[in-house]
Amino acid sequence: MQRLAIAPSQFQNQQIILTAEQQHYLSRVLRLREGDRFIAMDGLGHWWLAKLEGNQAQILEPILQPNTELPVAITLMAALPKGNGFDEVVRYSTEVGVVAIVPLVSDRTLLNPSTGKLERWRRIAIEAAEQSERQIVPTILDPVPFATALSLAKDKNYICVARGDSPHLRDCLQNKDFAGSGDSPNPESRIPNPQHPSIAIAIGPEGGWTAAETEKAIASGFQPVSLGRRILRAVTAPLVALSLVAAAFED
Amino acid sequence: MQRLAIAPSQFQNQQIILTAEQQHYLSRVLRLREGDRFIAMDGLGHWWLAKLEGNQAQILEPILQPNTELPVAITLMAALPKGNGFDEVVRYSTEVGVVAIVPLVSDRTLLNPSTGKLERWRRIAIEAAEQSERQIVPTILDPVPFATALSLAKDKNYICVARGDSPHLRDCLQNKDFAGSGDSPNPESRIPNPQHPSIAIAIGPEGGWTAAETEKAIASGFQPVSLGRRILRAVTAPLVALSLVAAAFED
Repeated sequence: MQRLAIAPSQFQNQQIILTAEQQHYLSRVLRLREGDRFIAMDGLGHWWLAKLEGNQAQILEPILQPNTELPVAITLMAALPKGNGFDEVVRYSTEVGVVAIVPLVSDRTLLNPSTGKLERWRRIAIEAAEQSERQIVPTILDPVPFATALSLAKDKNYICVARGDSPHLRDCLQNKDFAGSGDSPNPESRIPNPQHPSIAIAIGPEGGWTAAETEKAIASGFQPVSLGRRILRAVTAPLVALSLVAAAFED
Repeated sequence: MQRLAIAPSQFQNQQIILTAEQQHYLSRVLRLREGDRFIAMDGLGHWWLAKLEGNQAQILEPILQPNTELPVAITLMAALPKGNGFDEVVRYSTEVGVVAIVPLVSDRTLLNPSTGKLERWRRIAIEAAEQSERQIVPTILDPVPFATALSLAKDKNYICVARGDSPHLRDCLQNKDFAGSGDSPNPESRIPNPQHPSIAIAIGPEGGWTAAETEKAIASGFQPVSLGRRILRAVTAPLVALSLVAAAFED
């Protein structure tokens, strides 16, 4: 059955007030007709069976679906790569299971993204969450300077650095005995629950972090880690890092 | 210093016979002039300092560079995704460290690629090997039917399946005591050496493998594995799997 992400504010009593864009999507793209059913997702882990009724949809019943979320709240902090590279980063990070993405403006970032890009990334996150059968849609924060991102530190924080002799992220993840502090990114979310640890992974831009950035991150409690000996592109590195974190925690 | 991949057949005595395309690349793209130096890589782990001399280059001396190769020979067998998705698969698989990529035509593959595509993938592999500072350029095989690929099995073989209750690839990689059988993809290669184990990872197309394909793979000694509970795109799944294999074996 087709699925549609709905903002919590659109729910009123047992009805969903559909936006013009959603009406278009349901009728023109998904080809649903009056009375057809679809799944409404609120992006916080709740699903409902809904029935299309003109500009609205009637909520029929809640759906309990299998939990596909990771038992860890992963936040990706990634410097914006050139061109449209961040589209891919948002898409695959969502598939792999992050709960939040923080676009970073670092010392070597060339791009200062427009509002249009931000809306685009949020749409991509919704699409990717649907396709990968996740319960929640990751939050894409407004782009922030790297120094601001450091203040969003989680239970455990890693900064990926190329070259040098940092320990491999794999080895740092072996020691998983850091407890969750209840730093869940969204208190209303069904998943991940507050007992789960939260992790942040920071990835630099093409050309890497400046020495000043790495030092500041380490001073803020970020552990410098390696992703291996080969030099990864800014678009590839986040998925390599997230794959390791997700696999280390998946039940 | 700029680097250029050279086919072993182009080496003659202490000279490199440059192709017209390489001459164009060196002089027009890299802007090298008569007498300028560059690094020639043979794709098998050997580098030389070379000097541009007209249509040729003179070899000055071998270069010993740090080894960035994995101590394991990973072959990716991936069903061709829609559109240009395989370009990305070739690029990031090269960055992560595979030695060979086998494009698969599976039951649900829509695409039967042209010769032009194959040449394009080989160019991408060369570029990505240079950028990621690898010693070797992965071999991109001609596309083969899935049944043929099964006959290319390595020391250890995994087939990634979505849904179902296969064990996680992470857990299967914990048991790494399978010995190398000397099945190195290229006996002339400096790296990986014949003592290293060889591993094949098979990844399906959009829509997944057919039941018949999975059964045939299992009968050929492929271990079915999961990459987690979320449904990954055909473009994302190879990098997730390769990240785990590379991390499991990196020194």
